[in-house]
Order: sequence, then structure tokens, then C-alpha cells
Amino acid sequence: MTIHKPRLLTGDTPTGRLHLGHWVGSLENRLALQDQYDCYFLLANIHAFTTRAERPADIRQSILDVAMDWLAIGLDPMRSTLFIQSEVPAISELTFLFSMLVSYPRLMRVPTLKDEIRDKGLGDNYSFGFLLYPIGQVADILAFQADIVPVGEDQSPILELTREVARRFNQLYCGVDSQTEDKAYVAQGGLFPIVQTLHGRTRRLVGTGAPNANGVLLKMSKSLDNAIMLSDDPDTVAKKVMSMYTDPKRLKASDPGTVENNPLWIFHETFNPDKAWVAEMKTRYRAGTIGDVACKKQLIEVLVNFIEPIRQRRLVFEKDPAQVWQILRDGSAKARAVSDQTLQLAKQKMQQNFL
Amino acid sequence: MTIHKPRLLTGDTPTGRLHLGHWVGSLENRLALQDQYDCYFLLANIHAFTTRAERPADIRQSILDVAMDWLAIGLDPMRSTLFIQSEVPAISELTFLFSMLVSYPRLMRVPTLKDEIRDKGLGDNYSFGFLLYPIGQVADILAFQADIVPVGEDQSPILELTREVARRFNQLYCGVDSQTEDKAYVAQGGLFPIVQTLHGRTRRLVGTGAPNANGVLLKMSKSLDNAIMLSDDPDTVAKKVMSMYTDPKRLKASDPGTVENNPLWIFHETFNPDKAWVAEMKTRYRAGTIGDVACKKQLIEVLVNFIEPIRQRRLVFEKDPAQVWQILRDGSAKARAVSDQTLQLAKQKMQQNFL
Repeated sequence: MTIHKPRLLTGDTPTGRLHLGHWVGSLENRLALQDQYDCYFLLANIHAFTTRAERPADIRQSILDVAMDWLAIGLDPMRSTLFIQSEVPAISELTFLFSMLVSYPRLMRVPTLKDEIRDKGLGDNYSFGFLLYPIGQVADILAFQADIVPVGEDQSPILELTREVARRFNQLYCGVDSQTEDKAYVAQGGLFPIVQTLHGRTRRLVGTGAPNANGVLLKMSKSLDNAIMLSDDPDTVAKKVMSMYTDPKRLKASDPGTVENNPLWIFHETFNPDKAWVAEMKTRYRAGTIGDVACKKQLIEVLVNFIEPIRQRRLVFEKDPAQVWQILRDGSAKARAVSDQTLQLAKQKMQQNFL
Repeated sequence: MTIHKPRLLTGDTPTGRLHLGHWVGSLENRLALQDQYDCYFLLANIHAFTTRAERPADIRQSILDVAMDWLAIGLDPMRSTLFIQSEVPAISELTFLFSMLVSYPRLMRVPTLKDEIRDKGLGDNYSFGFLLYPIGQVADILAFQADIVPVGEDQSPILELTREVARRFNQLYCGVDSQTEDKAYVAQGGLFPIVQTLHGRTRRLVGTGAPNANGVLLKMSKSLDNAIMLSDDPDTVAKKVMSMYTDPKRLKASDPGTVENNPLWIFHETFNPDKAWVAEMKTRYRAGTIGDVACKKQLIEVLVNFIEPIRQRRLVFEKDPAQVWQILRDGSAKARAVSDQTLQLAKQKMQQNFL
């Protein structure tokens, strides 16, 4: 008897190289989950077109960059499936079919959609594909009949939408009773499991810059130029840390400093494995008996120790992009086979199977 | 040197059997165009789901019914490609990709969309797929790089949208200058021809019923129960004609009658090949020297003569639905091959080719 591992799906939209924020927010979770789950890691290149349709070469380059970052941190193509969204037609086909099961007002209630329209200042002038994006994410997940999706808080409305579409499909086309409990849908004949959110150690990492006008430190983001990349060399890491925002009230090393809302200490707490050192130095920093520079030098060492092995592994792949493309091709072929099977079953349930 | 015929695409959404209104509006055009063009006839079953997602068995049955109507009137699978939309993944993939090239406000300006929302009383409560539908139609056309689409007036906004998407794609991903004339796009390296509208003998046929409150005769439509089907047997045709709305002011045969706004005479003018008889009898009808019944009996003969050979050919296919499905499978395989080639070229132009 084969025991199938539960299936997990997650991924990244290829919009640039990955940084420490991605590591803390998602990548370290994925590494920890690779053995426990049958993992599918998606490069969502179609979704990248929602806001970057005029930059196709950048999207292509980002696919390679993100894939190299993935491989460098240890996502393992022998255990997990690394694939490109546009190589998996079932995702587009299911996106189209699922769009029939979501009402327009329901879609517009997806808060991530409203937030992005506001945050990116899109006004009314966004592509229609931008609105289709959440249904595309539903299709990403259901194409693989995923059991589990690890996400941050901000993405949980997409998972709620995914559950609604799965319930509706199962009720409408598989005859599952609407009173069925989520866990029982597949046992009752439903095609799609009602996906569970995996609340992992998903956290938000601040960037290296100053807080905004409201005193809030901003999220690490390449576009805000406050990111330390997983592919930064030691000199770059050193420069970024030395110019990192700390406590602006500290005029000289002997002034007392605050460790709250201070990226220097947030980074030490997140990445420094020597917890005793961090605790002791925070006390000394507060007392004004150790300065920014000493603590920054220590942070540089910590971060270089963390990043440099990743960067070195990445260099091997950078020298052989053909190998990376081959890994993505192989993963995409597997993803295509698995999702085509789901699609054929979906069409059968919808009585639109003709072969 | 092979001279390729220009490619034509059109089709029907499978929502029931076809009637005389379809014949006048589109089918007779298609028959006339089969030799001149490389014709692709689409059964748009995904689009049927936009408003009938809860009736998959009806959609499946309608696919068979429409295909049998097509074959019965003489659409010829040896010359033309008859295919099912959901069997052609490139349409869904291109729908997703093209949705990035249409802004949300632009899409909402498509008048057919607004008209249908109003006519069907959908309010805000329509599926998101209903909004995606026009982009799906763009993909139907461009997936086959169609040169020509024969349409009624009401569909010309969809062709305008198709031209806009084709121009934008050709400019953005094929480097065609935005000042290029429509006819020169392909010569300048564009992937998609700027499709031309074929203004054929596309007309609107009234139904058999009374006018609405504004005195306007309604369009023939199965849902209005005012249609004569291409598969109606002679008795059914006779009953429908005998109960057909004519001139309500005529109380007896000897009263003078009007031929305007009178379905009896609209049908004679449309279907009676004996133009001399029609002209003479219209004069007598106006004068009150011939009654409704005599003219209706003549119309029954005319319509039965027209419909009965179609119905007889249809009966042959009705006895062998497996043959019809095989024709659709073969056509779909050809349509898939042709459209997959377009899709691969589109992905190459978008720099998202990885094989």
C-alpha cells in the first residue's frame, strides 16, 4: 500500500532576485516542508504579466534568477517539482472554467485586489488580467489538487476564494451535498480537496531603510531599495549593513540606544544564531557601552556566513544556466502531466469530455 | 507555390437547436463561404458556461444538436473544420495572456457586454467569466490567425476589440511600428493579422409571435417560443405557421390586410422562391381578396420544402451520433494543431518559450 504524501503548492511571481525577506517569509518554510510534503513550486510568469506586460525580457530573466535562488537555498528538484506556470496549459484552462463559478461582486471583494489597486496607484487603469489574477491563483492550487498551501496572512483571502470555488465545483458537478464538512468533500466524491492554509513560521522582515512618516519600518522590498539579496557578495552585504538605519538619536557610541524599531537588532534577532551574544549586546547597546559600528560588524559576519554558502551554490548554477532550464523543463513536464489529469477529470465532471 | 485560402472563423454557442433565424443570420452565409475560405466553425461550449454553468448536460446535448444542424444544412467536414472550444487549450491560454493587454475600463466599454447585462437583467450578479467572454472571443479568432470573421452588426464591437489586441500584441512583442496600416501588420513582422469584418447577407429574422408593447416584432429566439427549428417535422411547421401572428385588424378573409410588420409576409419574402407569386398575393392580400389561411398554407409548403431535406439529412446523423462526435473529434484535433502552432509563436514573441 502506497501512502501518498499530502500535496503542497506555493511559488513566486518572477519579478526579480530573492532577498532575505523572501527567506524569512517563505523560503525557510519550504525547505522545512520538502520531506513531509509532495511539493510543487510555481514560477508564476503569467501573473508577472498582469503589471509588467511591456517587460517580457525582464520576466524571462527573473524566471532564471528565482530558479537559481531556489536551487541555491536547497529546493531540491529530486524531491520537489519546480515548474513554470505558462508551461502548464491546465492552469489557463481551469482559470477560464473557474471564472464561471465566481461572481463579479465576489471577486471584487478580494481584499488583496483592492489593496494592490490602492498601493500601486492603479486607479481604474489596470489590465483586465489583473482582475483575473486571483482566479488564476485558484487554478494554480486546484490544478494540483493541493491539500496544503503555506501562505502569509495577506494571501489568506485567496485561499478562502479557492475553498469557495472547490466547494462550488464539487457541489455543482460532483453532486456533493452543500452541508458536507470541508474535510469530507473528497470522500463524498468531490474532485477538489478543500485546501488548508499552513500557518508556518511565515513572518515579515523589515528593510534596511528608515521608517515612513508614521514611524513604521517598511517591509523589505527590492523596489524600495532596502533589500539584502540572497545573491549579494560580502562587500555588498557589508555596504548595505554599514548604511543600515539604526537609532537616529544616538550621536556617539556612548549614548544609550533603543533596540526597538531598529533594523540592526531585528536582523540580529532574526539571523544571529548566538542568542546569548544578542541578549548581552542589546543590554550594552541600551546602556550606551557598545556602538552601532561594532554591532554592525558582527551583523555583517552573521549575514555573510548565512548568505555566502547560498551565493557560492548559486555561482555553480550561474555558470550553467542550461542545467537550470533543464530542471525547469523536467519539472514543468511533470507538472503538466499531473495537472492535465486533474483537468481531464474536471472536464469529465462537467460533462465536457469528448475524447 | 501553394496559395493559401484566407482563413475564416465563426461559430455558435451551444444553447439549443438552430432555427430559421440562425439560417438567415449566419448559416446560409457559411455555406456560401465554404469554398472560398479555409473555414473554422467553433462550438463555443466554454462560453455557454458564462450563463449556464449549472446546466452542463444541456450544454453537452446542445453541442451534439448544433453539430447535427450544421451537418444537415451542409457544413462539410471534408472542406471545413468543425470543432469544440474546450478541446482547444490554446484558446484558454491566449485568453489569459490577452487579458493582460486589455484595460478594465476598455473591456467595460464593449457595448455587447452592457447590452447583455441589461437584456438579461443580470444587475451586478453575473459570473466573472461573463466579463471574460469578449476576451475569449478575441482568443477564438486570434488562435487561428483568422483573416475574416463574418458577423452581424451586434458583434462588430468584438471585432474592434480583436483588432486592438492584435495591434497591441504586434507592437509590443513583434516590434511593429504603431503607425503601421492594418493590412501591413503581418508583412511588418506581426504575428496576428488585423481581422476584417465580412459583411455578408447577415440579416435579422422575426419570430412567429405578436409585436411587443412598442409595436416591434421580436427577433426569432427559442427562448421566446417564437422559433421554427431546422429540425421541425412538417406537422410542427404547419402548427407553428397556422398559429403565426399576422394582421390583427383582419376579422374575415375579405377584409383588406397589411403586409407590413406582418410575419406571414416577412417569411414569404425571405423563404418563398416564387417571387412573382409573393408579389401578386401581397396585392390581393392588401385588397382583401385572399385570406390568411390560404397564404399560410402556401407558406407551410414553402417552409416544409426548405426544412424537410435538412431534417431528413439530420435524421441520418441522429441515428449515428457516434459519427458526429468523431467528426468533432477530428475537427478538434486539427483545430488544436493549428492553434497550438499560433500559441507557440505567441509565447516565443513574448519570450516565454522554454522548450
